[in-house]
Formats: sequence, structure tokens, C-alpha cells
Amino acid sequence: MKLAGYGEDRLVSELTRALATDENVRVGVGDDCAVIGPRSAKMWQLLKTDCLVEGVHFSPDADPKKIGWKAMARALSDLAAMGGLPRYALVTIGAPPSENVSRLKAIYAGLKLAARRFDLRIVGGETSRAPALFLAVTLTGEVERARCVTRSGGRAGDLLYVTGKLGGSIRGRHLDFTPRLAEARWLTENFRLRAMMDLSDGLGADLPRLARASGVGFEIFENKIPRHRGCTVRDAIRDGEDYELLFSISPRDGVGLESRWQKKFPKLDLTRIGKLTNRKSKIENRKSNGFDHFA
Amino acid sequence: MKLAGYGEDRLVSELTRALATDENVRVGVGDDCAVIGPRSAKMWQLLKTDCLVEGVHFSPDADPKKIGWKAMARALSDLAAMGGLPRYALVTIGAPPSENVSRLKAIYAGLKLAARRFDLRIVGGETSRAPALFLAVTLTGEVERARCVTRSGGRAGDLLYVTGKLGGSIRGRHLDFTPRLAEARWLTENFRLRAMMDLSDGLGADLPRLARASGVGFEIFENKIPRHRGCTVRDAIRDGEDYELLFSISPRDGVGLESRWQKKFPKLDLTRIGKLTNRKSKIENRKSNGFDHFA
Repeated sequence: MKLAGYGEDRLVSELTRALATDENVRVGVGDDCAVIGPRSAKMWQLLKTDCLVEGVHFSPDADPKKIGWKAMARALSDLAAMGGLPRYALVTIGAPPSENVSRLKAIYAGLKLAARRFDLRIVGGETSRAPALFLAVTLTGEVERARCVTRSGGRAGDLLYVTGKLGGSIRGRHLDFTPRLAEARWLTENFRLRAMMDLSDGLGADLPRLARASGVGFEIFENKIPRHRGCTVRDAIRDGEDYELLFSISPRDGVGLESRWQKKFPKLDLTRIGKLTNRKSKIENRKSNGFDHFA
Repeated sequence: MKLAGYGEDRLVSELTRALATDENVRVGVGDDCAVIGPRSAKMWQLLKTDCLVEGVHFSPDADPKKIGWKAMARALSDLAAMGGLPRYALVTIGAPPSENVSRLKAIYAGLKLAARRFDLRIVGGETSRAPALFLAVTLTGEVERARCVTRSGGRAGDLLYVTGKLGGSIRGRHLDFTPRLAEARWLTENFRLRAMMDLSDGLGADLPRLARASGVGFEIFENKIPRHRGCTVRDAIRDGEDYELLFSISPRDGVGLESRWQKKFPKLDLTRIGKLTNRKSKIENRKSNGFDHFA
């Protein structure tokens, strides 16, 4: 059987079935980051790896500095989704012998720029020959135990929020977005979030993942989904690469959230797009609402 | 300028020039692993990333289980080289849509086998479409501060040792070697090593790196280099992918090493192949003694 049409989530779930774990694995495969540490530790370590492939995540004529930025920012977006702070990065670059050294240097400058901007240190990596350019970035981070937010904490009745606007990322935003680290840190400092993830494959693919991880369903007010200019609702649900935060919060804990957000981040939308419900929402069963890497 | 002929070490050194660091970075880019932790901590964290590319590190007809094993074992070999113990792994798989799911499952079984054998946990990863199959493995590990061995601690007069035999790995051993974790742990428990690394690009490429990192030269007794059957001295120096340990120890600290090793590891050679010297050995200036990924 070929990978095409097999389904990325199915593949991952089959590959990683029955993985061994230990007493310090707080969260393993299946969330935005792995979370490691003794149950009662004050700080937990976050581990995240991600990759960028030419022709898949960027086109050959993309600004190389932005390629590097994106490679780092994608993994940072996952740290943000757990409420974490970045610490260290390892960067692997695979490239064909015909690759231009100056392009690689510009890509690395983009990696360094993102590292500086978000206060993390590149401490290692690897280089290899490869048929096409790819980057693999691994980050370590930290999060206070009390502020660590997973995908699986959502409960029926929670309000669902997204930051920013969705859709149309392919027109350029996917190469120079800002991972929502500051926003996530402010949220976990001031509010008790129940579940959170970053939107990388599109709301239509990612929200069902959050709901499944939490064992609940969801209801979305489609006309409330914040859209970038020129985007339809369908675009906002399916395009992907938004790198915005999707989170749930209980109605009681969410009191004052919208007004305080607006004061703190006046330039960035925060929109209530629906709620978590008891299991088996209709929308959850709709197919192909987002990006599948192998479809 | 194209990558081909540029030189991998030169590329890495130019890309990573002037990387920011912080007070917890004990060892950054340029050693087998990054080492992280407060200066006086009892345990330090090790971070290592590595990748495997089809057509570069394995041929399309390689046993898929061994591909997975190799991906994990290569990174483990670097942990061994620091004297470390493996803890957690993140695994990224890039594959074309035409890839067979059953092959990916066999590859993953090889990853899991190595994880079980060397007592580490796979806690995350990523999957992506890619023009050709690649694996990127990141490991975290731990090492007692007092037992952490870098490439840079060698001094003139140190004896140079290698474990096992060198050369001819391409005939099959490169796919199912055993990373020398147990051997390295025994060495650092019982002896004070000065410098260590694992041999991945061949003694001819790697030994000059160790010497350079330590600011010394070296002398090798070429006829003493332990060779696999059918290998010439040249093969043993240049073939690469030996994944054996190369280390230096002062003559005083090395008393009893050979006889104790033989009792502990009767099936594995330990060979004194030369010594570290004052700067600028002749051999150090010989060119292309090992594997350059982009040559």
C-alpha cells in the first residue's frame, strides 16, 4: 500500500502504537511537543522536532532568509502551543552538491535571526548530502508545570478561541509569520486554559485533533471564523499554515479574556469561534477539511 | 559557489560562526553532542541530531529494519562518544507519496528495536512529504559532569586508542553496527579519558578533527591500525562509518587499561594506534583522508 491516500494521522498512529514510555514522560507522541519531567517538578522540558522540505514547505524561488526563519518559527509555534519558552535548537541541513553555498548562508541567517528574536541558542546540528534541500529543526524548551497546556484537557462546554486571522497563508504569510510565543505566555500567565494547539494544517484538520485528544466534540460558528482579506470560510478552514493558536477555556475562566486581550494585543484578533461539546459533533466527521501531507 | 568541493567542515564553520551562547551551554556546535547545564551541576544534558538519506546513507534495497536501526544507532554513537546515557528520541520521517507503508513500518520497527535495546524512549516526531526518503533523529541524553568527555581535552603525549576494527563498513556493517555505549560508560567509569569522539567519517577525517579541537597534532602507527578482514590501511583510514570510539588518555592514566579492557570486553579489540603530539603533525596536513558529505 502506498503512502498517498493512507492518511497522515493513521500512519503516525500506527507507527507509534505501543511506544515504550517511562515515569518522566508527561506527554509523548501526539501533542505539539513532548513534555518531560518528574510529575511534581516545577519546570518541565519540552521537546519538538519539525522539518521543511523544498517543493513542499517552500518553493525553490523563496527568499532563503525566510526559509530559515520559517524552519525555526514552525517549531517555535509548537512550543508556544504548550505555553512554553524556547531554550536550545539543533539544525540539520540536507542539500544536493549543486546547492549554492550563498543560499545556504542566507537560510542560516534566517535561522539565526529567529533564534535571536525569540531568545534561543543554536547549539548543534548536522549537514548531509540529499537529493533536495531540507531542514530539520529540533527545539528544547521549558514550561512551568502549572502553565503547561496540552491538546487533551478540553471539556464539553469550553469556549473555543483562535488568535489572528485564518486562510490564504500560501500567498506569503507562511514564510514570515510570528509564532505566538508572547501571546501564549500572556494567556497562561493570566488565564487557566484547558487545551491548546497551533494551527498548522488548517482549522478543519487541527480542531478535530484537539477534540479527539480531549475526547469531546465541537461546534463552530462558521461565519465567525476570522478570515484574512480575500479568503472564504472554506479557505480559512482548509488552507493551513496559519500558525495561530487555537485554545479552549471554561466559560467561568474566560471572564474578561476578550477585553483584557484587546488591551494587551490591540493589533491581533482574538475570536471566539465556537465551543467544545459532547462527543460526535457532525463537523468532526466531515472529511478532508485540512492539509494531509501525503494526500 | 556550489556546495560540491566547498568542504563540509568549512561550510559548518562558516554557517555557525558567532552563534550566540549562554551560561548553560557547556559545549555547543563542533563536538559529537551539545552539552547543556549549569557549570557545577551533577548531571548535564546531551543533545544530538542526525539524519539518514536514501541513496546517501543507505541504498533503496537495504533491509528497512536495518535502516531504522542505523538511524538510531548513528545518533547513539555520538552520545557514547561523550560518555553519555540515552534518554529520549524524536524521529522525523520524510517520504514521497509513492513510498510503501509497509516499508515505513519496518523502518519504524528498527527504530523501536534500537530504542528498546539501548533503553531510550521515542516521545515525538514529525512526518512530511519529501522527494526521497529521509530520517532525522534527535536524541537527548545525560552524563555525569565528571564523566563527560569532549573532543577538545586531548594533550600532547596522550595515547590514542580505537575500539574494534576499521574499514569496509559499506559491505554491510554500516547498517547493523552496535554503538559503543556500554564500552564508553565502562571507560569513563574506570579511567580518566582526555578526549573522545566516534569515527563516522573515517579515521583520516575524524582524527584531525579531534586533534584540531584539542589544539594538538598526532602521530599514527599505520601498521597498527586494526583492520577488518580484506581491508588495506588506506581502507581503514578512509572508508568511514566505523562507529568505533577514538579516544586519548594520558600514559599515567592509561596504566592497566589494555589488560582490564581485554577482561571486560574479550570480543572487542582495543588498539593503541598512536599518540597526540605538539601541533602540526605531517599527517594532519594530508588531504582527503576521509569522507566529505559534499565532495
